[in-house]
Amino acid sequence: MTEDAEVESELPPKPESEKPAPHFLRDVIFHGKFGLLKALTPEENSQSQQGLYFQDGQRRVDYVLTYHIKKPGTGRSYRHSTYLLTENAVARSLRRSTHRRDRRARHHQAQTAKAQPSSAVTDVELGNAGENLNGHDDNKAFRREEFEGKLRDMGLELEKDEEGRIPGLGFVKIHAPWNVLCREAEFMKLKMPTKKVYEVKDCSGVMEKINSLVSKALEPLHPHVEESRPKNIKHLSHTFSRDKQHLFDLSDKDSFFDSKTRSSIVFEILKRTKCKAKYSMEHLKGFQSLDVGKQQVVTWCQRHPFKEGLLQWKHCLQKWRISGISSLLGSGVYTAAYPLHDGRINEESADLGDRKLLYEEWANYGVFYKYQPIGLVRKYFGEKIGLYFAWLGLYTQMLIPASLVGVIVFLYGCATVDDNIPSMEICHPKNNITMCPLCDRVCSYWKLSTACGTARASHLFDNPATVFFSIFMALWAAMFMEHWKRRQMRLNYEWDLTGFEDEEDHPRAEYEFKVMKKSMSKDQKSQQKVEKLTLQDRLPAYMTTLVMMLLMIGVTFAIVFGVILYRISTKAALYMSSNPVTRSNAQLTVKTTAAIINLVVILILDEVYGAVARWLTVLEVPKTDKSFEERLIFKTFILKFFNAFTPIIYIAFFRGRLVGRPGNYLYVFESYRMEECAHGGCLMELCIQLSITMLGKQLIQNNLFEIGVPKLKKLIRYIRSKQGGYQEEERKKKLLRYETDHFLEPFAGLTPEYMEMIIQFGFVTLFVASFPLAPLFALLNNIIEIRLDAKKFVTELRRPVAARAKDIGIWYDILRAVAKVAVIINAFVISFTSDFIPRMVYQYMYSPDGSMHGFVNHTLSYFNVTHFQDGKEPMDPVHLGYPVEICRYKDYRDPPWSPTPYEISKEFWTVLAVRLAFVIVFQNVVLLMNDVVDWLIPDIPKDISLQIHKEKILLVDLFMKEEQGKIRFLERRVSAGAKENCSRSNNNNCTKAHPRSGHTNSTKSV
Amino acid sequence: MTEDAEVESELPPKPESEKPAPHFLRDVIFHGKFGLLKALTPEENSQSQQGLYFQDGQRRVDYVLTYHIKKPGTGRSYRHSTYLLTENAVARSLRRSTHRRDRRARHHQAQTAKAQPSSAVTDVELGNAGENLNGHDDNKAFRREEFEGKLRDMGLELEKDEEGRIPGLGFVKIHAPWNVLCREAEFMKLKMPTKKVYEVKDCSGVMEKINSLVSKALEPLHPHVEESRPKNIKHLSHTFSRDKQHLFDLSDKDSFFDSKTRSSIVFEILKRTKCKAKYSMEHLKGFQSLDVGKQQVVTWCQRHPFKEGLLQWKHCLQKWRISGISSLLGSGVYTAAYPLHDGRINEESADLGDRKLLYEEWANYGVFYKYQPIGLVRKYFGEKIGLYFAWLGLYTQMLIPASLVGVIVFLYGCATVDDNIPSMEICHPKNNITMCPLCDRVCSYWKLSTACGTARASHLFDNPATVFFSIFMALWAAMFMEHWKRRQMRLNYEWDLTGFEDEEDHPRAEYEFKVMKKSMSKDQKSQQKVEKLTLQDRLPAYMTTLVMMLLMIGVTFAIVFGVILYRISTKAALYMSSNPVTRSNAQLTVKTTAAIINLVVILILDEVYGAVARWLTVLEVPKTDKSFEERLIFKTFILKFFNAFTPIIYIAFFRGRLVGRPGNYLYVFESYRMEECAHGGCLMELCIQLSITMLGKQLIQNNLFEIGVPKLKKLIRYIRSKQGGYQEEERKKKLLRYETDHFLEPFAGLTPEYMEMIIQFGFVTLFVASFPLAPLFALLNNIIEIRLDAKKFVTELRRPVAARAKDIGIWYDILRAVAKVAVIINAFVISFTSDFIPRMVYQYMYSPDGSMHGFVNHTLSYFNVTHFQDGKEPMDPVHLGYPVEICRYKDYRDPPWSPTPYEISKEFWTVLAVRLAFVIVFQNVVLLMNDVVDWLIPDIPKDISLQIHKEKILLVDLFMKEEQGKIRFLERRVSAGAKENCSRSNNNNCTKAHPRSGHTNSTKSV
Repeated sequence: MTEDAEVESELPPKPESEKPAPHFLRDVIFHGKFGLLKALTPEENSQSQQGLYFQDGQRRVDYVLTYHIKKPGTGRSYRHSTYLLTENAVARSLRRSTHRRDRRARHHQAQTAKAQPSSAVTDVELGNAGENLNGHDDNKAFRREEFEGKLRDMGLELEKDEEGRIPGLGFVKIHAPWNVLCREAEFMKLKMPTKKVYEVKDCSGVMEKINSLVSKALEPLHPHVEESRPKNIKHLSHTFSRDKQHLFDLSDKDSFFDSKTRSSIVFEILKRTKCKAKYSMEHLKGFQSLDVGKQQVVTWCQRHPFKEGLLQWKHCLQKWRISGISSLLGSGVYTAAYPLHDGRINEESADLGDRKLLYEEWANYGVFYKYQPIGLVRKYFGEKIGLYFAWLGLYTQMLIPASLVGVIVFLYGCATVDDNIPSMEICHPKNNITMCPLCDRVCSYWKLSTACGTARASHLFDNPATVFFSIFMALWAAMFMEHWKRRQMRLNYEWDLTGFEDEEDHPRAEYEFKVMKKSMSKDQKSQQKVEKLTLQDRLPAYMTTLVMMLLMIGVTFAIVFGVILYRISTKAALYMSSNPVTRSNAQLTVKTTAAIINLVVILILDEVYGAVARWLTVLEVPKTDKSFEERLIFKTFILKFFNAFTPIIYIAFFRGRLVGRPGNYLYVFESYRMEECAHGGCLMELCIQLSITMLGKQLIQNNLFEIGVPKLKKLIRYIRSKQGGYQEEERKKKLLRYETDHFLEPFAGLTPEYMEMIIQFGFVTLFVASFPLAPLFALLNNIIEIRLDAKKFVTELRRPVAARAKDIGIWYDILRAVAKVAVIINAFVISFTSDFIPRMVYQYMYSPDGSMHGFVNHTLSYFNVTHFQDGKEPMDPVHLGYPVEICRYKDYRDPPWSPTPYEISKEFWTVLAVRLAFVIVFQNVVLLMNDVVDWLIPDIPKDISLQIHKEKILLVDLFMKEEQGKIRFLERRVSAGAKENCSRSNNNNCTKAHPRSGHTNSTKSV
Repeated sequence: MTEDAEVESELPPKPESEKPAPHFLRDVIFHGKFGLLKALTPEENSQSQQGLYFQDGQRRVDYVLTYHIKKPGTGRSYRHSTYLLTENAVARSLRRSTHRRDRRARHHQAQTAKAQPSSAVTDVELGNAGENLNGHDDNKAFRREEFEGKLRDMGLELEKDEEGRIPGLGFVKIHAPWNVLCREAEFMKLKMPTKKVYEVKDCSGVMEKINSLVSKALEPLHPHVEESRPKNIKHLSHTFSRDKQHLFDLSDKDSFFDSKTRSSIVFEILKRTKCKAKYSMEHLKGFQSLDVGKQQVVTWCQRHPFKEGLLQWKHCLQKWRISGISSLLGSGVYTAAYPLHDGRINEESADLGDRKLLYEEWANYGVFYKYQPIGLVRKYFGEKIGLYFAWLGLYTQMLIPASLVGVIVFLYGCATVDDNIPSMEICHPKNNITMCPLCDRVCSYWKLSTACGTARASHLFDNPATVFFSIFMALWAAMFMEHWKRRQMRLNYEWDLTGFEDEEDHPRAEYEFKVMKKSMSKDQKSQQKVEKLTLQDRLPAYMTTLVMMLLMIGVTFAIVFGVILYRISTKAALYMSSNPVTRSNAQLTVKTTAAIINLVVILILDEVYGAVARWLTVLEVPKTDKSFEERLIFKTFILKFFNAFTPIIYIAFFRGRLVGRPGNYLYVFESYRMEECAHGGCLMELCIQLSITMLGKQLIQNNLFEIGVPKLKKLIRYIRSKQGGYQEEERKKKLLRYETDHFLEPFAGLTPEYMEMIIQFGFVTLFVASFPLAPLFALLNNIIEIRLDAKKFVTELRRPVAARAKDIGIWYDILRAVAKVAVIINAFVISFTSDFIPRMVYQYMYSPDGSMHGFVNHTLSYFNVTHFQDGKEPMDPVHLGYPVEICRYKDYRDPPWSPTPYEISKEFWTVLAVRLAFVIVFQNVVLLMNDVVDWLIPDIPKDISLQIHKEKILLVDLFMKEEQGKIRFLERRVSAGAKENCSRSNNNNCTKAHPRSGHTNSTKSV
């Protein structure tokens, strides 16, 4: 920890021992990354094997940056030697600047005076060193050097490792010392636990007993994660402040900030640190990449506030060029940046670290029935990821009652299928209704009794219970929202996020770059300083977005239409086939193939749309990362939503609507008849399509992609390692922590996980009226999904930087929107897709005896076969064995003998009016009920609001006590000599200490 | 400011000069309060005439408490002397205790040790003094004494004035010294301006120029209120903290906290201060008022933690009994508590104080066209009232475009009245349609052409423009909401409320009392400690609320039904009258009287409902004041809303719906026919009813009640003062500030003001489809309303305690709800009340040439007069001069010659279906548009969010600088001797100061 140690640690451990890797192993795919492993001597392996600490074994590695040193695979040795020389030069200059810094630290009083000349020296030095380097890589090395210098200026401690076990990769290990942690914690307004603890009372009396009983009963459902503190004891938290350090429990400084906090603090510094070093002309070669002429740059910079000489305009250019770690990563100066995982998960010897614990008690299919250890997840991954899993957990939990009711509704349908009068009438052997042909010429008359099977099946999904179920599910969705709000609030309280406000983020590098470009082009016209992008600048991007989105949605529509055409034409072709087997299987063949095509198209377009949405968002150049994420999510959601639901909406609301009537069927492209639903409504078909899409998507996307692909990768790796012998596996195990983690996949955000769940939520709520089993399927999927995601996070991804978040952001709004749309869609499904309303209308308006008897007859209109136009009558009129005079078809039209034959009848309008009225009533009643639920359930759980209140009082109390102590101390100091002074001076100051005691008492008793 | 001065000031100024008032003047009504004025000697008048300061002329009066000393009006002198004696006794004991306190302050070190015995002494003292006092008043005096002692303990300074110009009234003037202000400001987390100022840039370039032009053009609209600072300079604010006093500009300590802040700080202390003094048994006589047996109290207290002796249970009882100023006011210990107004408004000599300025530039009808000086309003009255006026201002502003469009729509109706084909057809001289009688027997056939006038008038309100207008108004309402959110955010920023969180308030005294009662009764059964009221406790109150609310709504319905019956029966009676003049005026007479009855009933019920709502809320015993207010508002709103809109909803949706058909009319009570609307739809009648209700309510409630009554009071006062001679007026002028303010009416909250506006908002949005002039009427009313309210606040009310508020709370939710309901109601009005849909249906489905020609004929059904049942045919069948065979009536029914005569026809169902479809489309489209508006307009204005971000950076910057300064100071101290120490110790601490400079630079450049 002395200065010398630090200087040493910043140098590559043994620069002179550098030797070309003795035998290059074959390239191994580690999650799509190529890397080379180098043999380790056992001694090297034993020392600081974990790799979680610096070489001194004292300072934790809080963050790691990696970069490519050079690809030695080319084998051209002269290049390699140049590289070595360069590296040595860099090392030398590094050493020098470090020494300088140390000198500066020692003679800090004179710092400001010395700073100017010394940086001038660096210029020269770096300039000279730069001459030896070649091109792009050299520039990168200098930017690294500069960035790392800045980091040291910020107080971070760095250790470089370029001779690790992976040739070609350099590591910068970053450690944040105590004072930096404190400073940043204060800036970030982190809430830390104070010494003060207090008891959290759940509730009193009977409730307490019931609660303890319930929690005892649920005991086996809780994961075996021991909490470090008793459950009903909570530390009072307060925003960390160095002025108030004495409030906090600093007995163990190493663990006061946990690893997640440390890494997020370092990440905050990395984001904020901007390079503004002065380069010599040599290092500004990268100008071309700015996409503007050099002269432009010069002109622009000269016109700007920084006008003092050439150095300054380079400076002002740098301000734009390099900002924070993200742009350094983007430009390849560093290849990766990540905090370290806690330890290995597959070592038996290791003590139960958080990661191991998570692996065993969370990322494990064996514990699927248990609650998630959300507290631990949050402790390890941070609040944002914790919230995702908490949300997913709540969603899954809420799916349990929904799927239960769904199953009951389905069973009700099964049980009552034999009591259903309409299907009984259809299936009745005496039923002798002759139906009109379903197409012109080719088709013939048919008996209604052949539709018996479909009619019975339809009843499973089209019965009064579905109406109840869709109301139930609308309320369920509202309850889910409310529940989540409360859970979120509770977590906010438990995680000390109350009072935390999202700060506006740093602008993204792309945004700043765009602003600079605009600024440069603008400057030649006017003198204004450009600070932001206006709507005008973004208009082209917005227009592109709009056009592309419409185009993509158009593509979706086109594909759906294409599938329809495929279905119509194939069906027609198969019907015309002479082979009777083909004809009888036509329906099945067409439906199956069409559904599969649909599914495949959806899966492919899903990927395409994801890429398009990202591209469009990049075009828009959003200002902050948050805005980028929101815009991306919004676009992706719209596209994926349309993609998933367009075919379903077609079946629900358009199929079989515009078909014409016998003798006057509507045709597409003059040859294909519009599709009609089977007798008994389209609900059945909707249900089939829904279940195929939902199951297919879930099975393929989740299980195949998410489980299968990693398994496959593992298998390939295994085979390859078999080929490469045992060595490599062994070697991999011997890698240091930061090296192992480098081979893990980077964390790509939670968007895909959320998106998948939201689309599923759509399936569960949007068409639930037609498919009561959807919640069950979703539940089964999610039980796997949770553990799958958990596994991914614990074992396959680099540790994400912990991000604080109070809520799930835009996702909540999307959920709300889906739930709202679901109400309307379900209203339409019940009233238009199902036969619920016609049945009701018949029963209460037309039925002679108030029963459903005669309903089937009522829904069928009459057609006089003599009214067939020429060429449209069936080719085989006596197909059924008897000549037909009047046939029936399903529609509400006037009979042939009325004054207006085949016109839409009064019954049609009556049913339509009732259908529409039902929609209005359903929508408004359900939305009102939602609002009532929203209003009845307070957003903040009562106990939490009480606790928060109590905490505030305790905090005031604490401060009061502290102040009293301070005042007593001051008084004691003053009292000795200043008594006389006091009596003459203002009375107030003397009595100051007294009033407080009264106040303290009164607040205590609140 | 010395001790002696303080002691003196606490005593009544000249107790020995107390003399019975020489001549009692007659009682004078001051706003319903009786008081007696006493003559003043000129000398007394001249000194500290303003009454804004203590007698020393130094310490501001921040708050005033008043109490009744004794009513000397009885004239019984022995009582008076007792009173004097008592007062002296109290004064003596007061003086003693004050001395004691001062002693305590001097020897503060020994305070804790001495406290116990000295309070025991007080007990004895007070006990003895108490013996002399009689009954209730004595108890009050002691509670006052105790409370004031507590206040002094809290550091407040008090001055009593019992011999003022108003006999029978005592004043306690409260002054908060600097250290108390600082302490409380820290607790209340007040944001105060720091020394740091920064420039607020509006925008750049062209926009800047346009903005400056616009603001120049609007210059005359701005009030002449000079802001103390330039407009684009803002002080950086930070939560006040004594640790960071150096950040704030404390050069003028007197004005650092303005009068509004000072009074709210004092009020906070008053609310929080709870009496817990130990009384002797004599003073606990008031037990009976607890409504529980004394034994119960004892039992309860004994079981509780405070078990040490008798004194303690009294103590624990006190904890419940007296809490804060509100319960003291409630139990009459004090009669009023208020802060002081700034100064007189009608003195020419006075320098332009804030109140004067407000009076001239705000509470003045002459400036009705100007913006309100909201900043000044906030400065004087606090944020809550500022927000109300800002909201009212924005609402009024937003009404301007709405009323403009409304007038245009109305004018469009006027302009197109001659082009309207249906009314042309009705009025056409060749039109020869014979209509069926409108009632059985008494009525006769009539010519359609006689309805020409109504048809033409109907067109004014029933034309396609109204559809556009109601969509416009729905969007207008959404825009208004969005605009308000943004304005609120902007005000939050300007008023430094960002980051301010509503704290949970102290429980109300009634709540605590109820909890205690419950606790006592519970205790006898179980040992649990009761801390809150559960749902179970409140269930009776909730049930009462529910029943009462339903009952009240039922009453509203009953009254509406009564008015309908009145209308029907009177009409029938008048029609049967033999006098032809009566008969011809029947319609007019009935409508006018009915509307007036309706209006009167609404006005009366409004008052009744207000009282009922308050009573119900008191029954519910809400925990906090905020909760009380919200519950009260909710109930009042529901009741008043139903009251105002039930008659209108009846006319819009029920009148003329269930009337039967000629020959088969429906009857109420078997003798009165249901009302029918005039030919041309009910829209016309709706419009009349709306305008009468709205105008009547506004004219009578606002102008008569709010302007007239105060004027009347003033007149009475003037007349009385004339009778009493010039003297009294003079005397009133000579009253001290705190005495004058006592005669003003207390501030009763903003609820009535908001409620009035929300009901008006309902009129403006709910039925706007039928009455496009509503916004105009509202606008005219509000222009007066703003100034009226302003006048009331500035001149007629005591100064309210400034309350902080970030938003308008529950009112916003109510506004949203009204706006949502408005969409649905407008959809129904357009589709069901107006003839818009039938016209559209005719034009596009039935019209032979696509025009409206023939529409009138289409809507009329046929009736064969031979189908009249016996006794229902008209008495005078040849009234029109020719025998009638077929008459027509307005309905969609099958003609007599169809197979189903007089059945509802297919057209009816068609129109109904289209109507319902329109409702669905309208509702969903408009709600979607609302959501889009909501989503497109960011809640936080861009410039504000940028400023907030900038402020945060500046703040970090400021702290960094401060820290650097601190560190440099420490370094300078340490550097001398500690250099060697440093080099040996941890490196981190030595380099601490250095990194910061780098960081400061980087944040600066953001």
